[in-house]
Amino acid sequence: MSEGMSVDKVTLALDAEGGDRGPAEIISGALQVAGPELHVRLVGRPEHIRPYLPREAPVLDFIGVEAAGSVISFHEEPAWAVRNKPDSSIAVGARLVAHGAAQGFVSAGSTGAMVAAGLLLVKRIKQVKRPAILVVLPGEGGPVAMLDVGANADCRAEYLLDFGLMGSAFAHAALDVAVPRVGLLNIGEEEGKGNELSRVAHGLLAGAPIHFVGNVEGRDLFAGKADVVVTDGFTGNVALKLLEGTAGYLLGRVREAAAVNARSKLGGLLLRPTLRGVKQALDPEAYGGSYLLGLRGLLIICHGASSSRAIANALTFGAKAVRNGVLTRLEAELGRVMPGVAPGPPLRD
Amino acid sequence: MSEGMSVDKVTLALDAEGGDRGPAEIISGALQVAGPELHVRLVGRPEHIRPYLPREAPVLDFIGVEAAGSVISFHEEPAWAVRNKPDSSIAVGARLVAHGAAQGFVSAGSTGAMVAAGLLLVKRIKQVKRPAILVVLPGEGGPVAMLDVGANADCRAEYLLDFGLMGSAFAHAALDVAVPRVGLLNIGEEEGKGNELSRVAHGLLAGAPIHFVGNVEGRDLFAGKADVVVTDGFTGNVALKLLEGTAGYLLGRVREAAAVNARSKLGGLLLRPTLRGVKQALDPEAYGGSYLLGLRGLLIICHGASSSRAIANALTFGAKAVRNGVLTRLEAELGRVMPGVAPGPPLRD
Repeated sequence: MSEGMSVDKVTLALDAEGGDRGPAEIISGALQVAGPELHVRLVGRPEHIRPYLPREAPVLDFIGVEAAGSVISFHEEPAWAVRNKPDSSIAVGARLVAHGAAQGFVSAGSTGAMVAAGLLLVKRIKQVKRPAILVVLPGEGGPVAMLDVGANADCRAEYLLDFGLMGSAFAHAALDVAVPRVGLLNIGEEEGKGNELSRVAHGLLAGAPIHFVGNVEGRDLFAGKADVVVTDGFTGNVALKLLEGTAGYLLGRVREAAAVNARSKLGGLLLRPTLRGVKQALDPEAYGGSYLLGLRGLLIICHGASSSRAIANALTFGAKAVRNGVLTRLEAELGRVMPGVAPGPPLRD
Repeated sequence: MSEGMSVDKVTLALDAEGGDRGPAEIISGALQVAGPELHVRLVGRPEHIRPYLPREAPVLDFIGVEAAGSVISFHEEPAWAVRNKPDSSIAVGARLVAHGAAQGFVSAGSTGAMVAAGLLLVKRIKQVKRPAILVVLPGEGGPVAMLDVGANADCRAEYLLDFGLMGSAFAHAALDVAVPRVGLLNIGEEEGKGNELSRVAHGLLAGAPIHFVGNVEGRDLFAGKADVVVTDGFTGNVALKLLEGTAGYLLGRVREAAAVNARSKLGGLLLRPTLRGVKQALDPEAYGGSYLLGLRGLLIICHGASSSRAIANALTFGAKAVRNGVLTRLEAELGRVMPGVAPGPPLRD
């Protein structure tokens, strides 16, 4: 990780106006984690930001304000909005990354607008065919990074190869996995299973300079069989929302069960402290957000309902990924499988 | 439902040798539910069946034995095995359906072999392009039927139209839903969202003579937004296994939480009776199995580890579906959207 050691300070832009909870919540997240090693530039209308900054505090040395004039709403067509609202917080934040004033940009605003701003303003790394959205899930043996969870509804097998390379680089840099095990989400464990896309992708991933462990099934997602799970953006998005739905349904039923009678109420009360651990293990805020990979900067998309803690986690994880060289690493990994270049041996650090 | 009223007796074939638990478990399931309205023909090697039948009992009037000479294992290539082992329990059972000696066939053996036997021996309903596997999931507002969960890894949009028609007919006949709401599993609620397959399928389903309610997302699966959820066999299979994995992971964590200390142990003990309800609500055995639809008979695929209760439920549900005319209904619904024929008005009973 020598490429990361020289980076003392990481600067991240933060969309102060994205998200459902308003600037107070977002800015509170920044105030929690800004410091000498993590500078935060708040992007938004200054009059919406200033009221939530303390008048005097040491943390202000590490926080800047970058003026924007508008906000892109969830209802606007993303690419149109990015093109036609150059003063929007998402466009301004993305340009800070494009111009090198920040290494990453965090927003709890429109996912579509973040993807569009990434493509139009930050631009792709030369070697990557399609950027992908990566999400970090809890797992029995540690976190699991899954991508793509929504940037590309229709994929070609070569995109999935890129996702494997990018996911491996991310897990190494952001999740501290020395040699990430990369699996392909599929409907059967044996090679040759699946639809046409996954059968071709299997062959490409097997030949790539990563530690490919073959197919993983939906039921293995939490079982620790892989650190990185590769899938197309349609299947990945369905899977992610299904996870959320199932977890919500189940925990709701457990809550209901604990309200049935006096006996179960007492049981629920006694269990509550340890059940809180279960909830935290599934907490989508733990890793702060989704990571848009494949661009010349790191874009982090937080849930619209993100709390200050989610924002703080997104900033911390994003800064760590940048500090550990995720961007240079992505570029290097993708460069290793350029057309005509034989893949090298698996990475060992 | 007049077409079903005249059917007094339903005969189902049952693979006595399929499944991991052996004939004793399977036959016990048959003994629980066979009766004047549900005749069961046990298919297998007679010497493996006879020991588990009572010597004398009224239920024997409704149970027959159909000799098979071998079993198809999970490791054999399905279509090859069905062709080359005509005396296997799955081939014999499928032929009973093909010849009209049974209206349906239940097996806890190889899913692939059941699909192959369905296509090769039972044959498709003329109008159906591809049979699909339907599974019944628990939901907040009642059961939800999802299809295809694995018969067709690569789908064309017209297949998804058929799945919608078949799922609607099944929900009506087997789940007592008068006018089933049919949704399309997709990554966004608005029309126009999704991958190319789902965008085209959306248009076809919207024009079909069913009650199409549009896109549903993974998080809505348990929310009671649709009685039938249509998807391709790849996405559906990933989703099904993910559900199993998430439920297993979560309930495991709740169990762990209840073992942390004396306080949580007591809490778990007090909660146990009501938590059992949560487990049952997710019980894959409640509806007995998966239903292979689109053939000239009903094929029911049970989990390899099925208990006698799962087998009994599969027989009961299968018989009910047949009695309520699911087969004639499927054929009729599919016939309504033959090429060149304008779709009629939505079905109302």
